[in-house]
Amino acid sequence: MTTTSTRPTVETPEAGDPRLDADVTNVDIAHLSEVLLGHYPELRLAARKLMADERFHRIEGQTLVDHRERVIGQLRLLAAEGDVHRSFPERFGGHEDHGGFLARFEELTHADPSLQIKSGVQWGLFASAIYHLGTERNHDEFLADALSVKVPGAFAMTETGHGSDVAAIGTTATYDPATQEFVIHTPFRAAWKDYLGNAGVHGTAATVFARLITAGTDHGVHAFYVPIRDEDTMEFLPGVGGEDDGLKGGLNGIDNGRLWFDQVRVPRTNLLNRYGDVDEAGTYSSPIASPGRRFFTMLGTLVQGRVSLDGAAVTAARVGLTIAITYGNQRRQFNGASPTDEIVILDYAEHQRRLLPLLAETYAAGFAHEDLLAAFDDVFSGRNDTPETREDLETLAAALKPASTWHALNTLQVAREACGGAGFLAENRITGLRADMDVYATFEGDNTVLLQLVGKRLLTDYSKSFKHLDATKVARMVAERASDAARYRTPLHRAVQTIADVGDPRRSAGQLRETATQRELLVDRVETMVAEIAQALRPAQKADPATAAALFNAHQHELVQAARAHAELVQWESFTAALERVTDPGTRQILTWVRDLFGLTVIERNLTWYLLNGRLSAGRARTVTSYIDRLLARLRPHAQSLVDAFGYEQAHLRAPIASGAEQDRQDEARAYYRAQRASGDAPVPEKHKR
Amino acid sequence: MTTTSTRPTVETPEAGDPRLDADVTNVDIAHLSEVLLGHYPELRLAARKLMADERFHRIEGQTLVDHRERVIGQLRLLAAEGDVHRSFPERFGGHEDHGGFLARFEELTHADPSLQIKSGVQWGLFASAIYHLGTERNHDEFLADALSVKVPGAFAMTETGHGSDVAAIGTTATYDPATQEFVIHTPFRAAWKDYLGNAGVHGTAATVFARLITAGTDHGVHAFYVPIRDEDTMEFLPGVGGEDDGLKGGLNGIDNGRLWFDQVRVPRTNLLNRYGDVDEAGTYSSPIASPGRRFFTMLGTLVQGRVSLDGAAVTAARVGLTIAITYGNQRRQFNGASPTDEIVILDYAEHQRRLLPLLAETYAAGFAHEDLLAAFDDVFSGRNDTPETREDLETLAAALKPASTWHALNTLQVAREACGGAGFLAENRITGLRADMDVYATFEGDNTVLLQLVGKRLLTDYSKSFKHLDATKVARMVAERASDAARYRTPLHRAVQTIADVGDPRRSAGQLRETATQRELLVDRVETMVAEIAQALRPAQKADPATAAALFNAHQHELVQAARAHAELVQWESFTAALERVTDPGTRQILTWVRDLFGLTVIERNLTWYLLNGRLSAGRARTVTSYIDRLLARLRPHAQSLVDAFGYEQAHLRAPIASGAEQDRQDEARAYYRAQRASGDAPVPEKHKR
Repeated sequence: MTTTSTRPTVETPEAGDPRLDADVTNVDIAHLSEVLLGHYPELRLAARKLMADERFHRIEGQTLVDHRERVIGQLRLLAAEGDVHRSFPERFGGHEDHGGFLARFEELTHADPSLQIKSGVQWGLFASAIYHLGTERNHDEFLADALSVKVPGAFAMTETGHGSDVAAIGTTATYDPATQEFVIHTPFRAAWKDYLGNAGVHGTAATVFARLITAGTDHGVHAFYVPIRDEDTMEFLPGVGGEDDGLKGGLNGIDNGRLWFDQVRVPRTNLLNRYGDVDEAGTYSSPIASPGRRFFTMLGTLVQGRVSLDGAAVTAARVGLTIAITYGNQRRQFNGASPTDEIVILDYAEHQRRLLPLLAETYAAGFAHEDLLAAFDDVFSGRNDTPETREDLETLAAALKPASTWHALNTLQVAREACGGAGFLAENRITGLRADMDVYATFEGDNTVLLQLVGKRLLTDYSKSFKHLDATKVARMVAERASDAARYRTPLHRAVQTIADVGDPRRSAGQLRETATQRELLVDRVETMVAEIAQALRPAQKADPATAAALFNAHQHELVQAARAHAELVQWESFTAALERVTDPGTRQILTWVRDLFGLTVIERNLTWYLLNGRLSAGRARTVTSYIDRLLARLRPHAQSLVDAFGYEQAHLRAPIASGAEQDRQDEARAYYRAQRASGDAPVPEKHKR
Repeated sequence: MTTTSTRPTVETPEAGDPRLDADVTNVDIAHLSEVLLGHYPELRLAARKLMADERFHRIEGQTLVDHRERVIGQLRLLAAEGDVHRSFPERFGGHEDHGGFLARFEELTHADPSLQIKSGVQWGLFASAIYHLGTERNHDEFLADALSVKVPGAFAMTETGHGSDVAAIGTTATYDPATQEFVIHTPFRAAWKDYLGNAGVHGTAATVFARLITAGTDHGVHAFYVPIRDEDTMEFLPGVGGEDDGLKGGLNGIDNGRLWFDQVRVPRTNLLNRYGDVDEAGTYSSPIASPGRRFFTMLGTLVQGRVSLDGAAVTAARVGLTIAITYGNQRRQFNGASPTDEIVILDYAEHQRRLLPLLAETYAAGFAHEDLLAAFDDVFSGRNDTPETREDLETLAAALKPASTWHALNTLQVAREACGGAGFLAENRITGLRADMDVYATFEGDNTVLLQLVGKRLLTDYSKSFKHLDATKVARMVAERASDAARYRTPLHRAVQTIADVGDPRRSAGQLRETATQRELLVDRVETMVAEIAQALRPAQKADPATAAALFNAHQHELVQAARAHAELVQWESFTAALERVTDPGTRQILTWVRDLFGLTVIERNLTWYLLNGRLSAGRARTVTSYIDRLLARLRPHAQSLVDAFGYEQAHLRAPIASGAEQDRQDEARAYYRAQRASGDAPVPEKHKR
């Protein structure tokens, strides 16, 4: 289960620390591993076991062509062995187990992120679009071949000219009652479908998103099943064309490409018609009357992509940190106090400062992901599927996916640098993972765009909770809060139900370790930021569109910041809730320090805000950093256990520097010098002769 | 000279702004380009012209083998056409023009960073080691073939077990008076030379760094010229072995590899003997008595590598921003105020917030680099070559190389994301540049290690300037400063010669735009941080080594932070000095805003420090962010001019998304919808029918 690594000895506990009980301060790695496996331990372990099989492993340095062929082959292996039908109905070999389906997919990341994403294209997007946007009619006709990969399919939503703004796509599907066909058409170059996995080479069909037009009315974006290539010759079908997107910055196991359609006709029944249908005569009908709500309902079925990217990002960060921390515990560099022994680099304070807060954030992101997965399963299983829970799920995914994908990029870069030149070698995997993860920050919804959605949702919730207050009153309260921290306990504040107690002189450095204090500080920041933006945007309600847009734009940066603060709060809450699931006292103690490190790192990063808003005094603010320093020193001896608990074997890490090779080299070098010193005929350093 | 891009119209100046003169607020692009070309305009333009030649361009997606062969071929082309001997003596075809040599090399980055680094290995390291560490004897024997690339050479300093800590390498060179040879030997696996360009495939010789041992004394690290491969068969010579480092995260045009030596004998005269020699009998002599000073003098000759990485990082950041800002001025996404026209994405406040501060920092890094290059040339030309100026140069390079290389990585990532999916395509160059730049953060001195050197130098300078004060007095003053900002004007403060005037109630938001205020804030931070660290480390002077090392480690993070603050101050000072070279008033005005944006972004990033140390009140601190917002709005109309002034042609950018193709697509789409609306038979949106 764990890597072959040298575990450092545990530090002596600090005397007098009331929270520290010397008997219990060790990580029970097996127990922590179990907690980390979350809601689907068996499924994850089984998928992980499958991913230890070298048939699924990325071969670094493969050509574009070879890598693509390898991954499509792996897809067929998965179709045969990988339980990829899990989320689908029983009559298609599935279990309608949506959460378990995603949990398994996330584990593919260990073998090759290209495999995760290509699988996501085939089953998570192409087949899932047929399933979620189609009806039984569509399922019967298209689903079996999509699931078996007999028909590799592209999910043709994004256009060259429109990325995250799906509502504005240009492709049209115009109904022709004479032939009872839809005519799929690309009106201009910017409306080419672009960046589509399976479009470059392998796809023989696509779910094409186009504006449904019938009887002169544009009913907005709908999805159509469109064959694109001849299954025998693999030539494009008449009227279909495209281009290969070619080499990318990563994920080169996937054949992204472009598609265009020149008056391509498909039968009326190729419309995936769950949320909108056209009868033979051309009359449109939909179970959802509002075009806006219909559009968001259709897009909402795609939330699973964001959920699984969140999980993949956590996986990549875990792999990177396991490699860097294992290496940091074996690699030695520079003499410190000893003239003969060099220092293990993880003993350097700066090395700890760089890696351990990222480890804490990785834990937080992992626990938050498990909660997101649970929320996803609650909704998609139907156990708790209401418009409100769907909206909550979408907001949660839109908050966590940016947080975790940016975190993974940052973590992999720091991990790379922490391994020096060895980290830059492809064989040690970090650079390849980072290159693959790069696009996670912008696909399935650009992170910045998603955060604005979250911000808008926070504003909506805020305005709902203050419906009963009149505007002038809110304005005055916000102004008071901003101008005078001493008058902080306003009705506004109580209304949003925090327990902020900033004016309390009893607050001391020690209180920062308290769950309630951390929560208070994190909640308060989100709520205050949202309240202030809401107040600033108030004039937009009565302004002309241009003025309103300008006002909104002027506060866009703050809105994004508020959404990020919200995501951090969510991660912290998930981490805090997870502590309850840790039954071993020592493990729980150490994990609480990790949680504290996460919370205080977030607070430290935003200390300016806390100071400017009078939430922390200068004296108290200073203790944030000094308490972080203490936590780093406490956690350092447990760093290896904390990454070992991720549960990876060498077959998952596959990085020679994290295999124990560095330890062997260091041991050999130290033995050489020890023997030389013992022999008495070591060369004498020149400076000793002077 | 400039890219074919749509220039946005200039904003209406804000009424009442005393600094704004409507007549002069445009960028004179040609003039600004000249200023940016710095000290070597003709050499840079000539090199840039050569790099527009496609023979030098990277072909994205080449295999490792093909890319390596292409780059070694380009090296031979450069040897024939590229003026690569410029820094070498006239008798070897050079001009002893050290600054010009580096300026030309930096321009190679446009074609392919692999070309820059492989050239750096051949001429900047291998040939330069022969030149700078050798005497005329060595030059006559080895230099001509190194310069002509008849002998591709590796610079065999780094070992698997020792990266930035060169003093600790394990390879030995033991003199055998019987045969008058040095015996080069690798005692254990960790002492294998590693990550050496030219070692993987092409190199036939190496300058090998090894501990020189003669007559039982270890004289420390020296360099030796060692043939490694048979020039005809390309087989390793007897006793030499190695491995290919294989695929890397970037820079795959370079054949990095490992070398080991099993009792390999080279003639006594293969010692590069400028700083240390061994006579036939085995007696060691050196012009530098102190082994420590000798070691640092030898390493000091290698500073040019760091200087040129600083320049290459600036180049990469400029290319990335030119692509992202040009695209941001053409790409449209989401409707704002208008129901028909989408918004150019650079008009979004968040997009400006992400890109424009990076543009300001790129300007700052560019000006700082030109100053570094001038300092380098002053020292290496002999015009101003003293131990002090050498040390200053090394400190400057150690400060700027981390700042600019991390900046380039950050900038390229943000630029990539700002271009969405298109940014992830290899054809648009950003991902490839970022992959190549990755290792710049750790090679030629790990950034974190370099910053510690800078920090130590700052401490040394600090202690020198306080020699006359007694320790107690300094301690009391530091304590006073920390505890009471109102008592800030202490003798300590005056002694370090800042003009801080924080208590002055006249300071207002407007003052932040003043050069003197920005300088004061930036200088004050560096000096205060250094003073506080010095004070904290004081007990180390009388402590045992273990205690001293622990104390130093406890303050390592702060020391690194202080060094980063110093680097930012240096960049800001260079930028400020450069404003004097801008003669066009409008250009100077706009560039002053760019400088202000840089200065205030640095201050904003460290606002917590200014607040905690009482340097800015909460009210004043708030104005930092609001003034940044105003600067972003002011600079936005000039963003295109500011990147166009970098002076790149399409042959340098080679990114389809920055070629005008996006503008064409947007124009076509908008024309299509305009015509459709005019025709009167556009489909009517469903929501308009309700």
